[in-house]
Amino acid sequence: MEHQYTTYDKELASLKDGILKMGGLVEELIFKSVESLRKRDINLAKEVIKQDVAVDRLELEIDEQCINLIALRQPKAGDLRFITTGMRIATDLERIGDLAEDVAERSLELADQGPLKPLIDIPKMAVLAQSILKSALDAFVNGNTAKARGVWEKEKEVDRLRDQVHDELIDIMVKDALSVPRAIPLLLISRHLERIADHATNIAEDVIFMVEAKVVKHSGGEKE
Amino acid sequence: MEHQYTTYDKELASLKDGILKMGGLVEELIFKSVESLRKRDINLAKEVIKQDVAVDRLELEIDEQCINLIALRQPKAGDLRFITTGMRIATDLERIGDLAEDVAERSLELADQGPLKPLIDIPKMAVLAQSILKSALDAFVNGNTAKARGVWEKEKEVDRLRDQVHDELIDIMVKDALSVPRAIPLLLISRHLERIADHATNIAEDVIFMVEAKVVKHSGGEKE
Repeated sequence: MEHQYTTYDKELASLKDGILKMGGLVEELIFKSVESLRKRDINLAKEVIKQDVAVDRLELEIDEQCINLIALRQPKAGDLRFITTGMRIATDLERIGDLAEDVAERSLELADQGPLKPLIDIPKMAVLAQSILKSALDAFVNGNTAKARGVWEKEKEVDRLRDQVHDELIDIMVKDALSVPRAIPLLLISRHLERIADHATNIAEDVIFMVEAKVVKHSGGEKE
Repeated sequence: MEHQYTTYDKELASLKDGILKMGGLVEELIFKSVESLRKRDINLAKEVIKQDVAVDRLELEIDEQCINLIALRQPKAGDLRFITTGMRIATDLERIGDLAEDVAERSLELADQGPLKPLIDIPKMAVLAQSILKSALDAFVNGNTAKARGVWEKEKEVDRLRDQVHDELIDIMVKDALSVPRAIPLLLISRHLERIADHATNIAEDVIFMVEAKVVKHSGGEKE
């Protein structure tokens, strides 16, 4: 970014603010969606579904802002990378919002049914996904990728928990067919959360790419 | 686009070609993934998983190409819209490739098991998803959005089929707990295909937006 405090600087700062605002809202939706499941709270689940509309609107605003910045300011190198990364982050955040909405919908399906088993792994998955998202957004703001590089370990742990939840639920269903309608929404929620963690990891990878202008996506090597 | 046949024109044409190539490959993966399920064909499933690597590579190439075009050519208005749409399309295509890989992985899980029931709705979903993708890519190439506007009807039909598959499988599992390990992969496949259709619909919406510079995403109105 330029060193003088110009209108252009302000526009870039405003883009950053927009993405942080969207990111904060999305983090809140992940938390609330799993809370709505944990507490069988219909109102909280409905709130998530309603708030996701604001996430969708923010994506469109950020997208428009990025295209205008590119068209009017003709940014180069680092700034251009920052702006196109902003567009990609907004896309991933929008998808995470949708997935939090999916979790909330599953939790509505379960609201009038007793718990199948104590929820342990699913809240753990949510905490990890939120933590990946937080590290990624922090790296976007302060350009420090050290923390963002920690996300792959967490993503692996989320995958492990998803497999564990999956196996456990299949076991429960095979032993008791009547548990199926209560087990399926939980199985789907564990997949929604795993995908949330994936999108958050995408954001971290995009930020690392932006900062280091180096591709780590699909490289595999860094993830091993 | 400009009227003289310039290097810049060639670069834009090459971007279009790259996206069509990626789109064609992804269409093939959708088809093959469901074929691998239908025929219990392990080799075909493994081929999908292998070919998805090429899809990932194409996404990175297209992304780089777009960023370079923006940086070096400073495109405005329509061209800029075309390039940023190209980036978004590549992102959606990459996700579709991942989902086709997911279908192939589920079909590997089922390969050594007898069929639970004749597959009817799942192949139908795949055909609809492919058709949505084809209309969207056609619209991207020829700028004709009339056909792309037909995708919402098809997407709704995919959603209906997914609900139907879901209810039917739950029913089967509740009646026979031993069917659970064979039913779950099918349930997940129906969701993978529904998400493939969603991403294809995103592409159609992006193309309509590009052509008409009008937001139809999240508007709801157009979808009713």
